[in-house]
Amino acid sequence: MTLPLDHITVLDLTHVLAGPYATRRLAMMGAKVIKVERTGIGDDTRAFPPFVGEESVYFSSLNTGKHSIALDLKLPEDRTHFERLLGRADVLVENFRPGVMARMGYGPDDLAKTRPSLIFASVSGFGQTGPDSLKPAYDMVVQARGGIMSITGEYGREPVRVGASVGDIVAGMFLLEGILTALYHRDRTGKAERVDVAMLDSQLAILEHAVAMVSATGTAPIPSGARHPTITPFDTFHASDGLFVIACGNDALFVQLCRVLDLDALIDDPRFCSNAARCDNERLLKRFIEQKTLSAPRDHWITLLQGNGLPTAAIQNVAEVLQDPQILARDMVQEMPAWAEGMTHHVAGNPVKLGVNPNARALDAAPKLDQDREKILAWLDGAAL
Amino acid sequence: MTLPLDHITVLDLTHVLAGPYATRRLAMMGAKVIKVERTGIGDDTRAFPPFVGEESVYFSSLNTGKHSIALDLKLPEDRTHFERLLGRADVLVENFRPGVMARMGYGPDDLAKTRPSLIFASVSGFGQTGPDSLKPAYDMVVQARGGIMSITGEYGREPVRVGASVGDIVAGMFLLEGILTALYHRDRTGKAERVDVAMLDSQLAILEHAVAMVSATGTAPIPSGARHPTITPFDTFHASDGLFVIACGNDALFVQLCRVLDLDALIDDPRFCSNAARCDNERLLKRFIEQKTLSAPRDHWITLLQGNGLPTAAIQNVAEVLQDPQILARDMVQEMPAWAEGMTHHVAGNPVKLGVNPNARALDAAPKLDQDREKILAWLDGAAL
Repeated sequence: MTLPLDHITVLDLTHVLAGPYATRRLAMMGAKVIKVERTGIGDDTRAFPPFVGEESVYFSSLNTGKHSIALDLKLPEDRTHFERLLGRADVLVENFRPGVMARMGYGPDDLAKTRPSLIFASVSGFGQTGPDSLKPAYDMVVQARGGIMSITGEYGREPVRVGASVGDIVAGMFLLEGILTALYHRDRTGKAERVDVAMLDSQLAILEHAVAMVSATGTAPIPSGARHPTITPFDTFHASDGLFVIACGNDALFVQLCRVLDLDALIDDPRFCSNAARCDNERLLKRFIEQKTLSAPRDHWITLLQGNGLPTAAIQNVAEVLQDPQILARDMVQEMPAWAEGMTHHVAGNPVKLGVNPNARALDAAPKLDQDREKILAWLDGAAL
Repeated sequence: MTLPLDHITVLDLTHVLAGPYATRRLAMMGAKVIKVERTGIGDDTRAFPPFVGEESVYFSSLNTGKHSIALDLKLPEDRTHFERLLGRADVLVENFRPGVMARMGYGPDDLAKTRPSLIFASVSGFGQTGPDSLKPAYDMVVQARGGIMSITGEYGREPVRVGASVGDIVAGMFLLEGILTALYHRDRTGKAERVDVAMLDSQLAILEHAVAMVSATGTAPIPSGARHPTITPFDTFHASDGLFVIACGNDALFVQLCRVLDLDALIDDPRFCSNAARCDNERLLKRFIEQKTLSAPRDHWITLLQGNGLPTAAIQNVAEVLQDPQILARDMVQEMPAWAEGMTHHVAGNPVKLGVNPNARALDAAPKLDQDREKILAWLDGAAL
């Protein structure tokens, strides 16, 4: 299978999470991604735990399938290399603070003149414009400022951070959308658009329900623990050996749940006969449901409920997820060669299944710092890479 | 400005959240999105709160800029309309359970024969393949089964749901990536790839850090409340009037924080001189920091810390986010006409800023059910839409 991006070259100056997340996805779809790193240290995440031997598994999980070259853009020789790379690139991706690329002589306005077909894509904390564009950000800063923490956690307790770095990752996904859209547009029209994605903007863009609530009512939603704020029952429940979730998104599913749990008396009970009534009486309903579910282990209930068409699941930890039969059947856990001889580690597979080869490219291990320098320079002179 | 997708027609059979989220983004980039709904009821979310007049703001926030036609695919006349629409579409998007489209006579294998240039894109709970492909899913089911709940919440308490519907929305974003990649590939090669995205797969794909931890150590991470599991200080802190966050991602930022808070004695303290030491002593360090921050309001600290280059933010609720000067400067809050005369509501703007017109298309209001039937049928006969 020809991969969709196998003729595209990406010059990747990003580090840490949001940018590398986007460029790894480009690599998975076939793009040649040349990771340009700082001489000496490279990407900060090379030093992030956990490690297998000398290799950060965190770094590797974000950089498989890329080529590394270390360049010091203060040195004339390395600037020459960089400019030759620019001459071969379709996309430049960077996540410095706004203005840094321009100070190095490679700002978007400079490159728009010398390399008009290059797509210049940036991801930053607050974007290239606006009063706070130069302020520093990390994942947690935009989770806090962007509103998702204010609706995550237990009612009446302090807000919590989402356990995955959605501040970075969602921004990386919008960056990817921008790059793919710009590539499509460039190939049709010849015009290379500038891509500018902010982590803060991206947080707002995933809060559909909360934004609708504020817009319609003026009142900001608050955390509601494990339960959905406006659908009932849509929550965690205790079985005899642990928690699981039941999600009844409509009346028909609630009726079915009552039948399966031998709670038929609740079906016509005015306290529970509509979603609005169930929301008003959700604590009582939870007790009725748990009165049943506490009598058997969660596997029993999951099998029974699934067998009757009800949406349910165990709350799996990530070790369990990596052994989930459905996840494995979907080829969502990929074994990668580690740097240490004979060792491997695992990374998440490709969630975008395209055509007959769902994991698309079989990715190489993540590169050691500057590992591909000679090969990349030879490629500039016509060799394969 | 020519919008990147303004020559693309999307036949959108999706309902609720993941699919409509993706197709709204396509509409924002210029695509003509024809929303095909069930006769009578339409998309379930038309009945979801909150409302402005008769209009669900939740529905509208996901469906601005689309055209609606209600079709009953059991009726010969409506099947004829549908097949004429298929003849004009570049992309078909659906989120029924696997097999439903085939039973209606419009499965991917059928359409691959009759409409080989059509991109057939599906999003579902568990994907088109695997042992659980037919099981029902909602956002919460994949948040539980996919692992994110197991790392979200307070240490020692029950896990919580992420307050935004990331189970759906992240899947919608990967669906969008697949559609954009497939469009690009089709225009280059003539081959229309099938797109298959699962909500469960998508959850695993955003757990980079947790997957790396399990892969390297065999141990699944647990919830760590508001703090980052492996970086310190990266947490919420109390000021005299409320909580705010400080995120020091490296030693230099920690040293700077100590200087600004007049905590210089901590800089060389062996309990705090490296990130690993700070993680081991994070509760004590939190007390030292709060001993200072409790003495003044959070606005004082945010101004002081930001002025010294430190990443910090208030934990804003969503009403505050919608008035944040940076969010407003980035044009991230869009006023939409409501169905009721003279009324409006607000939706999130476009986080993917491309070129000179950052919000891309000025979207029309979300359609009433079947509102565009006559116009769409006229368009099939050559009129504008």
